[in-house]
This record gives sequence, C-alpha cells and structure tokens, in this order.
Amino acid sequence: MRLEEHKLRTFGNQVFEHLGYSKEEAYICTDVLLSSDKRGIKSHGFARLPGYIRLLNEGRINPSPKLSVLREKGGTATLDADGSIGLVSASKAMDLAIAKCHKHGSGWVAIQNSNHFGIAAYHAMKALPENMIGFALTNASPLVSIANGSDRVLGTNPICVAVPSNKEIPFVLDMATSAVSNGKVEIAKRAEENLQGDWVQNSQGEISKSPLDMEKGGSLLPLGSSIENSHYKGYGLGAWVDIFCGVLSGANYGKFVPPFVSYLAPLASMPGKGIGHFVGAWDISGFRDISEFKNEMDDWIKHIKSSQAIAGKEILIPGEKEHYSQLKSEKEGVFLEPKVYEKLKDIESQYQLNTRI
Amino acid sequence: MRLEEHKLRTFGNQVFEHLGYSKEEAYICTDVLLSSDKRGIKSHGFARLPGYIRLLNEGRINPSPKLSVLREKGGTATLDADGSIGLVSASKAMDLAIAKCHKHGSGWVAIQNSNHFGIAAYHAMKALPENMIGFALTNASPLVSIANGSDRVLGTNPICVAVPSNKEIPFVLDMATSAVSNGKVEIAKRAEENLQGDWVQNSQGEISKSPLDMEKGGSLLPLGSSIENSHYKGYGLGAWVDIFCGVLSGANYGKFVPPFVSYLAPLASMPGKGIGHFVGAWDISGFRDISEFKNEMDDWIKHIKSSQAIAGKEILIPGEKEHYSQLKSEKEGVFLEPKVYEKLKDIESQYQLNTRI
Repeated sequence: MRLEEHKLRTFGNQVFEHLGYSKEEAYICTDVLLSSDKRGIKSHGFARLPGYIRLLNEGRINPSPKLSVLREKGGTATLDADGSIGLVSASKAMDLAIAKCHKHGSGWVAIQNSNHFGIAAYHAMKALPENMIGFALTNASPLVSIANGSDRVLGTNPICVAVPSNKEIPFVLDMATSAVSNGKVEIAKRAEENLQGDWVQNSQGEISKSPLDMEKGGSLLPLGSSIENSHYKGYGLGAWVDIFCGVLSGANYGKFVPPFVSYLAPLASMPGKGIGHFVGAWDISGFRDISEFKNEMDDWIKHIKSSQAIAGKEILIPGEKEHYSQLKSEKEGVFLEPKVYEKLKDIESQYQLNTRI
Repeated sequence: MRLEEHKLRTFGNQVFEHLGYSKEEAYICTDVLLSSDKRGIKSHGFARLPGYIRLLNEGRINPSPKLSVLREKGGTATLDADGSIGLVSASKAMDLAIAKCHKHGSGWVAIQNSNHFGIAAYHAMKALPENMIGFALTNASPLVSIANGSDRVLGTNPICVAVPSNKEIPFVLDMATSAVSNGKVEIAKRAEENLQGDWVQNSQGEISKSPLDMEKGGSLLPLGSSIENSHYKGYGLGAWVDIFCGVLSGANYGKFVPPFVSYLAPLASMPGKGIGHFVGAWDISGFRDISEFKNEMDDWIKHIKSSQAIAGKEILIPGEKEHYSQLKSEKEGVFLEPKVYEKLKDIESQYQLNTRI
C-alpha cells in the first residue's frame, strides 16, 4: 500500500514530538525515516519506528541530549552525541562537517555516544546541494564474521559516498560491507526458503544456505563471501568503518557495539560510549570548477550506462534505483508493508494522535 | 632467491638516474618498487621495471615533468603531474596532502596527467609517522566489468587506508576493488589450471573458471563476484575510485584510462589527461588525543585477533602479512622471482651499471 507523503510526515512529526523531541528534531527524525521508505530501503524506514520507541522507553536513547564538540582542528571535529538518536546527531554532525568544508575545502566529524542513524545516504546526500561530495560511515551491533573467524565481530558497517552531477541523477553508493544485510536473511527465514547466495556461515565457519544458522551462532559473511572470492576485502572495509566510527570517535567497536534491539542488553563493560558515526564532505571547488565537474559527471554516467549490458540486463548507476523509487513515492505515495502500516496505526491510536494515516 | 636490500636499492637508483631522473626522484621510484617487493606484493615491485622502461622509451612517461598545482582551497588541491611516473607524482602529492593536513586537520590532493603509481600502501603509509591516517586511490586501465555489464569498464581501482597504532602493527588495508587482481589469473594461465574462484566472466557475462577467457573478451569480476553475492558493491567501490581519480582530477576515466602495457596504444580521443590518483590524510589529533587513539588501536587489534578463529586458521589484521614479509625482507633479503632477477641482470648489463646484483 502507498501513503501520501505529507500524511506520513505529519504522523512522524507528531510521534517524535510526543516522545519528547523538539519540533526541529522531530522533523529530522521523520525526514530520515521517510527518505528511507521513499528510496525503497524498507528495512531502515518507518519499519524501525517501534524499535526506536522501545529504546527511548527503556532510556537507552536520550530524547533531549546536549550535543557537544569534544575537540576540533580546522576541518575536523569530534562530537559527543550525549546518547542522542543517530538520526538527529548524524544529521547535525553533517551540518557541522559542511560548514567546515566551506572553510577548509573538506570537513569531517566523528561522533561518539550515539545510536543508529538510519540510512547513511540521508546524511551523505546533504552535501549534494552544497556542490560537495558527501561521505558517511556508521558501525553497528556485531552480526558479521571476519576472514578466518567464526565469531560475530563487526556490524554490517555501511559506507556511503554521494557525488553530485548536473542533468543526470547523483551517484549515491550506500552499501553494507557484509555480503548482504541481515534483512535479506530474515526474509528467507520467514519464507522458509534457502538463501540464494553465500551470505551466512554457521558457527563452525562453514558457508551455509540455511537462514536458521543465524540463530545457532552463525554470522553474516563479509562482502566477497568466501576465501576464494577475497572476503578479506569485505572484512577490511568493515574494519575500516569500525575504526573510524568506534576508535577515532571514542565510541564502542567490534563486539562491544551496543545492540539495536531492546531485548538484548549492552555489555556490562564497554571501552567507549554508545555507537559511533563518521561523516564528512569534500568541496568540489577545492579540486575543480564546479560546473566543469558536474558536466563531466554527466559524461561519466553516460559512459558507464552506454557500455555493453549482458543480454536482458540493464546497467545501473549506484543510487539510480533508489532515485526512481523516490520519484515514484513523491508521485504515487510512499510504499509501506501492510504489517508496518498496522504498527503505525497502533502507535497513532496509542498516542491518541489526531493524524489519520 | 633473496637479494640484499641495499644492493637492490643501489641498482634501482642507478637505473632511474640512467633513465633521466634526478637523484631524489630516482630514490623515490626505487623506494616504491622496493617497498612493494619487501611487502610481498611481487606484481607491483621490480617485476614492473621493464614495463616502466618501455613506457619511458616510448615517450609515454615524461622523465623530467614539472608538477604544478592547478587549483587549491584550504586542505585540498589538484596537481597536474605533467606525464610523470606515478611513483613520484603520488608520493609528492602525498607530501602536499600531509602539509595541508597539518594545517587544516585533513589534506587531499587529486592528481591528473599521471601514470601508474605502484602500490597504494606506499603513499598512504607516509601518513603513519605523522600520526595521521593515510588514504590513497588510483584508477587503472579497464579490465573489470560492472554489475550487469559484459564490457571491461573499470580498472582494478584500489582503495588503501593506513591507520597508525602504538605497539601493534599498523592497520593497512590495500585492496583492488575487483574480486582478485589480474596477476592471479595470469598465474593460473601459466600453470594451465582452472581458476579457484569466481574471478572472471566470459564475453557473454557468464562466470567462467577458464583463465583463457580473459583473452577472448572476458573481464575480471568486481568484488562480490556474482549478482547473488552483491558484486554491485565491488562495482560501486571501483566506480567511486574512478570518479575521484578520473573526474575530480580531470584525468581519464572508465574505458579511456590509458593502458599500462606499451604494446596497447591509448585511445585516440580521450576526455582527460593521463591516469589519475587521489591521496590524502586525516590528522588524528583533529579528532582525539594521539596516544589515546594509538593505544586504543592496539586494543582494537587485540580484540579482533583474539576473536574465535575457524579451526586451523589464523585471524590477521589487514596489512599484517605484508608487515611480516617486510621484516623478513629486511633480515633475510628481498625475494625476487628468478625470471625477474634475470631481467634486472639484463638491464644492469645493457645500461653498463657498476652494480653487481
């Protein structure tokens, strides 16, 4: 089913205000979730609202945090998010990075003491209207194994790079560093089907096609999936993200990263504060004339898209599918799974909101 | 066979001086190749010397370039390498990035009109003694397909991130964004063996285990290897590198990137100049106290290495194998394949050098 964007936005704003957020913050939270659903990333949109609410209700997210800059030097800074929801802290950190980028040619903010920040693309894409290239990383609770390991050591730790173009759509790479997200495994589990790829290993470190192995001590495989196909590279990328988000910011890292789900408690002893993000931007004008660059990005996109496709397939630019999903959502309404819609209706009635989604 | 480092260094210096380089530049060229062989990256060390010589002899590398800054803004700059060998231009660009990083908290240099720069790790690792995190990208001649495509569109376009630690070895991720390097396919071809993984697709876009398909219009697969295992991510990473090195710098991109081998001519009409690199550094002190960070990197490394290994396997940190290879080379001499050694002897006698390698 598809809901009108403005209805969903009003609903989101009221929910987050009900939860104690200011108008401005409620707007940001809603905007991130909405943007995710519009772009077709169903796993990170309103489907996650009940999860955020549970963490807020348990006091694991602070609804009225005081963000503070712990350290800064020219184009860099570290932010203590004071237990904020990541949707807000990462968005504000990106504003700071963009301001620094205007002044120094690039700007970078590491964030500690935060919580899950939604889709990385939301934060990185704030750079686009500024004629900057946006960058966003976050670590996340451990679900992914590392090369030669059988433990869950890293999160799905995404990397996002967003590059503006002129007439073509922007290049937006937003990818987990695991072979696939946990959501894909969950879907197979609910459908009682085998996995379609080498996504999971069992607790002994053997590649498995059974989604049930995730509940028996198994783990998601890093991008590359197998030794033969260089999954040490996916491990390396996920580790890079963990270092920038966990170690550089002073947040937690590796197995210490607190879980998103409220029924799992964080570890008793942790080296850092909350989960961490790392966001930033490069100013295109620091390297090249802006219109020259954006026109050549158009040429680059046409060059890639006009290369030979495999019979029956279409070559896509990273972010292209999400861009068209967004346009469709704006025109025809935002797609929600019926189960998610029901949960939102429950929240609406529980909080006695005057919205009618 | 293993050669003493100082002998190989003297030999390299004399070769590059013979080719027209200044003492300083000859030292850099030699140092990059030597560093590669010491770290066990045989494909990028002295084995490539004949290739560089051929390009120099054909005038496709300029032995006495004038590097010039085309543009800069705070922590960023674009460098015209004037047809320089990448070994020198990327190293000097990294020096500039480090100087900018000291001042602005991070420093970034895009390089156009360059040639192959050796191992990315050499350039990125220059940041380590400065207590910075180093970053290096380069594009390269097209060998790699993209998701849903059957053409060779991208190079093996590596990403390197180097992070200092205190007592532990540094984290050095240096990875091609293809499933494997072309060198691995060449080895299987020479041994007349099938490929051990999903590394190559044939000209129709079907995954193939035959190394011979690379000569029949096939291509290397991007990291992830198959649709099922998300090779659109490897494609996205390689595309990111191509945009930063090709479009942002004003060098060539995609299929236009000039080939490394001298028997293949560059295309007649190209949108940019030479091949491109992108190097930079983040200053740790811009985010966190340096010793605090380096100590916690030690903790992070121990945390990762002490996680559960698969029976009979060992968990390694990115760069660990190369670090131990380097230590061994310094102690026992630098390993060279007999065939490479013979070629170096030929060069020694042809140039009538007084070295005795």
